[in-house]
Amino acid sequence: MSRIDGRTAEQLRPVTIERGWSKHAEGSVLVSFGDTKVLCTASLTEGVPRWRKGSGEGWVTAEYAMLPRATNTRGDRESVKGRIGGRTHEISRLIGRSLRAVIDYKALGENTIVLDCDVLQADGGTRTAAITGAYVALADAVAWAQAKKLIKPGRQPLTGTVSAVSVGIVGGVPLLDLRYEEDVRADTDMNVVCTGDGRFVEVQGTAEAAPFARDELNALLDLAVAGCADLALIQSTALEKQK
Amino acid sequence: MSRIDGRTAEQLRPVTIERGWSKHAEGSVLVSFGDTKVLCTASLTEGVPRWRKGSGEGWVTAEYAMLPRATNTRGDRESVKGRIGGRTHEISRLIGRSLRAVIDYKALGENTIVLDCDVLQADGGTRTAAITGAYVALADAVAWAQAKKLIKPGRQPLTGTVSAVSVGIVGGVPLLDLRYEEDVRADTDMNVVCTGDGRFVEVQGTAEAAPFARDELNALLDLAVAGCADLALIQSTALEKQK
Amino acid sequence: MSRIDGRTAEQLRPVTIERGWSKHAEGSVLVSFGDTKVLCTASLTEGVPRWRKGSGEGWVTAEYAMLPRATNTRGDRESVKGRIGGRTHEISRLIGRSLRAVIDYKALGENTIVLDCDVLQADGGTRTAAITGAYVALADAVAWAQAKKLIKPGRQPLTGTVSAVSVGIVGGVPLLDLRYEEDVRADTDMNVVCTGDGRFVEVQGTAEAAPFARDELNALLDLAVAGCADLALIQSTALEKQK
Amino acid sequence: MSRIDGRTAEQLRPVTIERGWSKHAEGSVLVSFGDTKVLCTASLTEGVPRWRKGSGEGWVTAEYAMLPRATNTRGDRESVKGRIGGRTHEISRLIGRSLRAVIDYKALGENTIVLDCDVLQADGGTRTAAITGAYVALADAVAWAQAKKLIKPGRQPLTGTVSAVSVGIVGGVPLLDLRYEEDVRADTDMNVVCTGDGRFVEVQGTAEAAPFARDELNALLDLAVAGCADLALIQSTALEKQK
Amino acid sequence: MSRIDGRTAEQLRPVTIERGWSKHAEGSVLVSFGDTKVLCTASLTEGVPRWRKGSGEGWVTAEYAMLPRATNTRGDRESVKGRIGGRTHEISRLIGRSLRAVIDYKALGENTIVLDCDVLQADGGTRTAAITGAYVALADAVAWAQAKKLIKPGRQPLTGTVSAVSVGIVGGVPLLDLRYEEDVRADTDMNVVCTGDGRFVEVQGTAEAAPFARDELNALLDLAVAGCADLALIQSTALEKQK
Amino acid sequence: MSRIDGRTAEQLRPVTIERGWSKHAEGSVLVSFGDTKVLCTASLTEGVPRWRKGSGEGWVTAEYAMLPRATNTRGDRESVKGRIGGRTHEISRLIGRSLRAVIDYKALGENTIVLDCDVLQADGGTRTAAITGAYVALADAVAWAQAKKLIKPGRQPLTGTVSAVSVGIVGGVPLLDLRYEEDVRADTDMNVVCTGDGRFVEVQGTAEAAPFARDELNALLDLAVAGCADLALIQSTALEKQK
Repeated sequence: MSRIDGRTAEQLRPVTIERGWSKHAEGSVLVSFGDTKVLCTASLTEGVPRWRKGSGEGWVTAEYAMLPRATNTRGDRESVKGRIGGRTHEISRLIGRSLRAVIDYKALGENTIVLDCDVLQADGGTRTAAITGAYVALADAVAWAQAKKLIKPGRQPLTGTVSAVSVGIVGGVPLLDLRYEEDVRADTDMNVVCTGDGRFVEVQGTAEAAPFARDELNALLDLAVAGCADLALIQSTALEKQK
Repeated sequence: MSRIDGRTAEQLRPVTIERGWSKHAEGSVLVSFGDTKVLCTASLTEGVPRWRKGSGEGWVTAEYAMLPRATNTRGDRESVKGRIGGRTHEISRLIGRSLRAVIDYKALGENTIVLDCDVLQADGGTRTAAITGAYVALADAVAWAQAKKLIKPGRQPLTGTVSAVSVGIVGGVPLLDLRYEEDVRADTDMNVVCTGDGRFVEVQGTAEAAPFARDELNALLDLAVAGCADLALIQSTALEKQK
Repeated sequence: MSRIDGRTAEQLRPVTIERGWSKHAEGSVLVSFGDTKVLCTASLTEGVPRWRKGSGEGWVTAEYAMLPRATNTRGDRESVKGRIGGRTHEISRLIGRSLRAVIDYKALGENTIVLDCDVLQADGGTRTAAITGAYVALADAVAWAQAKKLIKPGRQPLTGTVSAVSVGIVGGVPLLDLRYEEDVRADTDMNVVCTGDGRFVEVQGTAEAAPFARDELNALLDLAVAGCADLALIQSTALEKQK
Repeated sequence: MSRIDGRTAEQLRPVTIERGWSKHAEGSVLVSFGDTKVLCTASLTEGVPRWRKGSGEGWVTAEYAMLPRATNTRGDRESVKGRIGGRTHEISRLIGRSLRAVIDYKALGENTIVLDCDVLQADGGTRTAAITGAYVALADAVAWAQAKKLIKPGRQPLTGTVSAVSVGIVGGVPLLDLRYEEDVRADTDMNVVCTGDGRFVEVQGTAEAAPFARDELNALLDLAVAGCADLALIQSTALEKQK
Repeated sequence: MSRIDGRTAEQLRPVTIERGWSKHAEGSVLVSFGDTKVLCTASLTEGVPRWRKGSGEGWVTAEYAMLPRATNTRGDRESVKGRIGGRTHEISRLIGRSLRAVIDYKALGENTIVLDCDVLQADGGTRTAAITGAYVALADAVAWAQAKKLIKPGRQPLTGTVSAVSVGIVGGVPLLDLRYEEDVRADTDMNVVCTGDGRFVEVQGTAEAAPFARDELNALLDLAVAGCADLALIQSTALEKQK
Repeated sequence: MSRIDGRTAEQLRPVTIERGWSKHAEGSVLVSFGDTKVLCTASLTEGVPRWRKGSGEGWVTAEYAMLPRATNTRGDRESVKGRIGGRTHEISRLIGRSLRAVIDYKALGENTIVLDCDVLQADGGTRTAAITGAYVALADAVAWAQAKKLIKPGRQPLTGTVSAVSVGIVGGVPLLDLRYEEDVRADTDMNVVCTGDGRFVEVQGTAEAAPFARDELNALLDLAVAGCADLALIQSTALEKQK
């Protein structure tokens, strides 16, 4: 079966990672997974939230949002509504947890890094693109802090790399990296976050239309692990470039 | 290794399901998983939200909350803070999705069921207890509506049963149904929602301390599937009793 | 005239006070006035709000809330609406004032007690049940603090006891402790809070349907004072039990 | 004992009622009880809230607020804080109930009257001044609607008059119409709302410092009833004047 | 062409400035521009916001609001809506900037002055009346602080005076100080804030119906400068009176 | 005097207008004024807000926002704070008014266009870049609607073009199109919105440090009018390109 855009089932969309997109942020990346485009900035400031002061440990957190017309129909701004929706909260928390999984707080020292992931254009997989891009912005911010001696010489706050991809069963077939049209037709939808060495940070599978069996789960996990490995390679290639 | 309360690794805490707890609600259950106690009420009203009117289909949604002193230290009320936290949103959405997985909207007809899951006392596993109890409250509300002829004769809105349990790796050992003390020490934490026939509705695994490998994931899924089967039996036993 | 549940005009509903309901709170009570059930927890923490620091005096405050399906039709959660209603505010303030009336702040020392009164099921008189139950939870929290030496030896922060009851004129007849069906039919509705020695802490009378005369007010006060005396006895009996 | 401003215990402060203060409102009054000044406007619009449509009955409601510098120290604006405080809610509800006690909804027809009571300067007794002034603004708005034929000829929506006064025990002495300095020193504080024929609409007594006995309650009620009678006279005198 | 109230094009409405309107505020003025009435209070407190502490400099800020029935139809309270509207924000910011333009922060020392401008009745020009009145309240508060020695002897925090007026093109004719009926018919609307020596603090011109040409802009500025000079005279006359 | 980036006083920064930036929006532009980059999308939907239904006229409105790390230090998200700041409100209103100045509502018919202007990177002049870019997005959305026959054949909703630029006096010299470093040092700051034929839509001048004289105002207006003419040319060039 050929997919809507001609990909095979186990193929990622074209992925690009453009570093140094913002002149202000300590790390910044415009990541695209096909037509999904997310601007990820990493803001590093000295000091930590009050509850962590004096611990010698740093903190990493994330906020996710979508521009009102990132999607096919305009959504109301959460700032105008005066409250953040459940979906936004959930994804912000997921991104934060995913990146904290590869952070050594002691090595980071009492510095705080905030990752802002703003979806400029959405076509499925915004949270997985955000995690994948945010890791690169995080790495740039850490390098910036090392250059500025905000992190002690010889300490490496990053304990690994992290990337994420969506998988799903569409028309009975497990597919990697769903576009929006595929996502809405999926029976099962799963987001998987992996470290560069192939272990899991998050596995979130949801039966959208029908409960799924153990072997379907396994097939999806296989796809996702392979996809994350591809993404890890793209990340490292991007980071090797001179910014 | 013996657990803090003497259970084996694959053993549930004592689970009780007390139906008919509230005189007002169409379905109501006080569910306990050990010291975790959740009051689940199902409120059925005729009619559906505006975006669904005229579709002939019903709707099911859920709200989760915790009493301020359900936990060891008092938390601020979300009503006083004026906003719902991300964790509350996330769990409410999970409960709603889990129960909708076993609902046939057409058979339900244009009726709305709201499941309120209020944690009266928390000791780990509040979301899984909530889902397990809410299913029973939902079943009672459906039966009430059938008796009242709000649902067409011969139609069965419930397409199956659903229960949920937490699993985690603590000190290297996969354990079923974590208490709070176990939960805070877990390296990996997973919530699994299954249908009565052993398929998955939700799988949410998180690396709390260290990324987890595929075989660890498999061991946790094995534990969870068995635990959900035990819970399905407890649910059906409860539902067989005269209320 | 016989009342809907066979009580005489001056008779309370069956009142039960179950202490030690929560394993976490320093004091906790499930109080029922007939079908009205309120969970009252007293949370004692060392320290006081900033405006009271260094005064050597403690603080007592209260928050009242209703579960969404405590009533016959489901109410929207105040946390979801993002604001607390006027009724909730008013009752929280009433409970706080009532309990502060029997507190010696100096003897309490710089400790804070928060009373959470959550209505699990409502059938009229929720605020009076809350005050009556909260007093018992408060007494248990104070005893806990004395045992923990958080309160100086020999000091007694409680200067008396406090209980509360509703009264009203229904069909021209003054009645004690109104159920919901009676409450909605009342011409005049009054909540009275008394100390154990029969003095008034709060008197709040409202003409629901028609202004009331001085002798009607007097009749209601007579009923309420007697009712509070009965409640004081039930409280002291409950407190004498081994928890 | 002479009071701070030379009044006797049973004497009101100088009370003035200036009608027609606003050119826009259907009824408007600047009422002063000594240095307490409240601007009361009555806004009458055709139609009723949705829940009352088609009933043939009208609606009356009230909102109370204080200018930030009405008091000795500036208070934060509730609009800036984004939420209304409990005290504001409570007083708004009290004013609304008090005025509804003298309204015949059927005679009012499907019209809505909103009473806005904004405290321009506060020196104790702001809620009682607000009720007393709002009644006069209400009467003017009703007369306006009668002249405009918005109310059916021959129908009188006002079933009586209403006024309010504060009383309290200060230094052991029951006093009428407390100024701020007296109010803060009061052991017991009571607000009483009476109809012009001497019956009670609201009685709200609070033990500020010490519980109060039945005879103290009686003494306060005697004072309040006499004070409300004086206010009713001042109201009727004001209403007799050509506006 | 004669205006609705008989004024010439370049004539102000009758302007009154009543000082000492509030007994609590350090400076207070009831200002009227025809039927527009604004109560302006200046609250001076020792100390400054945290971000300015230790600078030796003071701070001046302003808040503008309208009573619900200040206008012809009742507006919802912003405190009830839970958020301040854009117009309110914008005007508050304008008033604050306008008054800060004549403040020497060093001479003020670490004191904060908050100007509250509450519109009691609106008939066009509320923001310009507010600025004009607030300047006088500010001057009184500064004088009060000088008398109390909160400001160092010999220092003068006021570097000039400030007043404001609206101008607009109505029916092709430039007019000074628009009433509401004129304002709604204006093609172009401009608010101008001037110092007493005739320089500009703010110029805010808006094409309501049609873009305006440079010579129209010039004609409006001429009118406004002359109007502000008249207002400056009225301010100084008011300030010369014994309060 | 040479400017920080080598421009002359009357020179714009490099301005680029990239059309068709978003695949979802009916019109979309990424506009840059030097390092200031704003994404402007125009969302056209059939229908109008309720208050305008049946009028046969359309509506145009705008929302402005900044990504948290658009600036040199990260700002808190307004969605997280739960309220929109005064500056955001003010600029949103300004953009809306500016674009409505060149709209013929009748010709637009009952369609609504929302302009979202999200600042991706800020370096001074974000509101003027937003207006200039939003006009182009608006023109594209109008053309889209004409092609889709949502606008009646032969009708042209655009009555002209609109662009905006900032000017200010820095170190005594009037400068066009201020960068951030210039803006913070400006004594006077002015934003001017002009139509393509050189008339004014908005003139907003503010004395940041010192009041400004009439001849300074004139010099700034001269600069701004010329700058807007340059921008109008850049806009028309961009619109002539095949998208």
